[in-house]
Amino acid sequence: MTAVPAAPPRSWIAEANLEDADFPLAHLPYGVFSHPLHKSSPRPGVAIGDRILDLAAAAGHGLLAGLGSDLDQACREPALNALMALGPRVWSALRARLTDLLSENSSRAAALARLPDAFTPLADAVMHLPALVRGYTDFYASIHHAENVGRLFRPDQPLMPNYKWVPIGYHGRASSLIVSGAPVVRPCGQIPGPPGQPPSYGPSRSLDFELEAAFFAGPGNALGEPVPISGAGARIFGVCLLNDWSARDIQRWEYQPLGPFLGKNFATSLSPWVVTMEALEPYRVPPPPRAAGDPAPLPYLLDAEDQRRGAIDAVLEVHILSARMRASGVAPLLICRSNLRHLYWTPAQLLAHHTSNGCNLEPGDLLATGTVSGPAPDARGCLLEIASGGSPLALPGGESRAWLEDGDEVILSGYCQRPGLPRISLGRCRGAVASALPQPASTVREY
Amino acid sequence: MTAVPAAPPRSWIAEANLEDADFPLAHLPYGVFSHPLHKSSPRPGVAIGDRILDLAAAAGHGLLAGLGSDLDQACREPALNALMALGPRVWSALRARLTDLLSENSSRAAALARLPDAFTPLADAVMHLPALVRGYTDFYASIHHAENVGRLFRPDQPLMPNYKWVPIGYHGRASSLIVSGAPVVRPCGQIPGPPGQPPSYGPSRSLDFELEAAFFAGPGNALGEPVPISGAGARIFGVCLLNDWSARDIQRWEYQPLGPFLGKNFATSLSPWVVTMEALEPYRVPPPPRAAGDPAPLPYLLDAEDQRRGAIDAVLEVHILSARMRASGVAPLLICRSNLRHLYWTPAQLLAHHTSNGCNLEPGDLLATGTVSGPAPDARGCLLEIASGGSPLALPGGESRAWLEDGDEVILSGYCQRPGLPRISLGRCRGAVASALPQPASTVREY
Repeated sequence: MTAVPAAPPRSWIAEANLEDADFPLAHLPYGVFSHPLHKSSPRPGVAIGDRILDLAAAAGHGLLAGLGSDLDQACREPALNALMALGPRVWSALRARLTDLLSENSSRAAALARLPDAFTPLADAVMHLPALVRGYTDFYASIHHAENVGRLFRPDQPLMPNYKWVPIGYHGRASSLIVSGAPVVRPCGQIPGPPGQPPSYGPSRSLDFELEAAFFAGPGNALGEPVPISGAGARIFGVCLLNDWSARDIQRWEYQPLGPFLGKNFATSLSPWVVTMEALEPYRVPPPPRAAGDPAPLPYLLDAEDQRRGAIDAVLEVHILSARMRASGVAPLLICRSNLRHLYWTPAQLLAHHTSNGCNLEPGDLLATGTVSGPAPDARGCLLEIASGGSPLALPGGESRAWLEDGDEVILSGYCQRPGLPRISLGRCRGAVASALPQPASTVREY
Repeated sequence: MTAVPAAPPRSWIAEANLEDADFPLAHLPYGVFSHPLHKSSPRPGVAIGDRILDLAAAAGHGLLAGLGSDLDQACREPALNALMALGPRVWSALRARLTDLLSENSSRAAALARLPDAFTPLADAVMHLPALVRGYTDFYASIHHAENVGRLFRPDQPLMPNYKWVPIGYHGRASSLIVSGAPVVRPCGQIPGPPGQPPSYGPSRSLDFELEAAFFAGPGNALGEPVPISGAGARIFGVCLLNDWSARDIQRWEYQPLGPFLGKNFATSLSPWVVTMEALEPYRVPPPPRAAGDPAPLPYLLDAEDQRRGAIDAVLEVHILSARMRASGVAPLLICRSNLRHLYWTPAQLLAHHTSNGCNLEPGDLLATGTVSGPAPDARGCLLEIASGGSPLALPGGESRAWLEDGDEVILSGYCQRPGLPRISLGRCRGAVASALPQPASTVREY
């Protein structure tokens, strides 16, 4: 465990030492970037202050010497999967080296500062998806979300009987993961008709967002070999923010009996910077106490250390900005403030459960939390919950929203903060809704 | 369309001309193989008679010259994804060239026959998964399966109201796809207790198989760009047999509200030879007529040519062989004979629906049918259906099965056959159940 430092360490990059810096020396998140002006290929980088340290360049100049050839190679890949595969010992060693290279009084700093190609201004970089995700799993780990949604369909029994025993999850679609900033095209699909009327194919009229966090798996496990809960946390590399865009009309009509499919797999946005579990270490807290009468986790999900500090204290927020607000110069409106600590299951429990039947995880697999709603009324992480009372969300300028409209931008953000500790940003995950495309040419013929 | 030949073409490889040959000249399925004795790396091959033509060697010796450098490169990859990406024009050209190379009266045959490394005996080869599947989707396309299963849970309304409108599907787990012959370890998981009792973690007691076919997507579509139904069939490369192993107790407890997860993602077996849609061309038939009162497919799923011959007439069978039967020298018992033509939706409809919201498919993505049950009582494609009447399956020697036991082997097979046409085998997908592993070391501590 990292000891809590008395004062935040300082970097020779002045912008990293600003009080409101998104990327102080204690942070060091990883991402994949390219520099369009330099026509550079996508490569791993680490954010510091107002810039990105190019890990491929750092490796090329020998600044990561002694950390192993696997790491050296991983820093030249166009995705972080290879770094994720190396495991916590190597991750720690790399973090220590980077901290040293970027520290105010480092003997290595001079060597780094001399390299003209080692840094790219954040403002010049194009960010890519941090990893090539093959397995993307979406959980349902917020009991508040499950209760709020369940109440809409089953007022007398909002929670399914399995909820407090099983970390509920399902497989999402990896191919349609997109990086923050990419537009989200309003999907078409089968829209249920009024009672007694047939469905029709057309643009969704009930487009929603979902505020989520998503954990990247590090070293994988072999098929048939579950990861015990005691070792599960150490296999998580880091976390991003994720927007699980949802077309509620398509979802409602299609989801029985096999779960969500086209209602969700048209796009899933991911923030570009992976915040490492090491950076989050000072912000680990116990999971919420179980209510009286609730069952203890089954032994395969129960670990004393995980119960002591398996959750993460991170504020998560959602802002919305409509096209009209943007045109009028109005700032994005805060519509949800939740916290990752509200989840019923810890990240380690999600990973242990996922492998408990022998299912194999691969480096770079993504385990998303599901909508992170909290107990408070202003901590509801999707419009389905926010407008569930029947009153649409009111926006500045007289607009209102039951569902997202074309031009609406949704901005997820998050941070960890505590007196005496540097603020760790969880980054931003943005996406604006684009109009549905013309419907595909169908060959309508006599049947 | 391929004209129906008067007599099957003959190969200079005598074994391909045998009446009961699995791999005649009209077949030419693709797979990925290696030769352990030669320590060769996995590479694409095509099956003919009793051997495999090594496509990497064929390309290396210039036998595929003139078909394009992309194809040449694709034949040297350790998976078929690159070949699948090339699309139907290249697939046809390759098939025509291979047919020529292997035909009795080919001018090129002599050149091929002289190459010592071009062929590997089937008996010596180790088969691998044909593609690196990133997106694996499992549909629910047999209305007979949906009704048989639905009747168990909702006797008054076996089919959900959406069934006849929406090709129901969900995302499966790609990482746990395994090739035919690999053992299937009985999974552990949360097993529901008797009414009023808590669940417990342990080996599944309700292990089942599911008889399925699975289609490989060829060229992908860009995110946001649906594939129209008229072009969907041409984007399918070929088909394998798939066993969607299912732990019914885990599935029953976990599946609400988000669908199957750990009850299925512990292992999914795939046959090694991909049968091309071109080889199946003579066996295309109309989909089953819709019952009176059933809705026509919505326009985005309706294409005249697809309605005319979008289904596939292929017999599918399931055999079972218990450990005791094997020890006694008893032959595998036929327990299901179904047909791919019974599906409610055609392969083109599955693909068009999958992309109808803009979801992007990638070359090598797998679209499985779901259990292919037919209308007849002996055409039930899983034990859940077979034993649903309450009477377990009787095996030779006095054994019986409500669910699979350790040591049981399940063998899926299939073929197309019609007078005057060569028999096209759909191959075999085998898997035997291995005992559950010792449960993972859990750190049971006070809660």
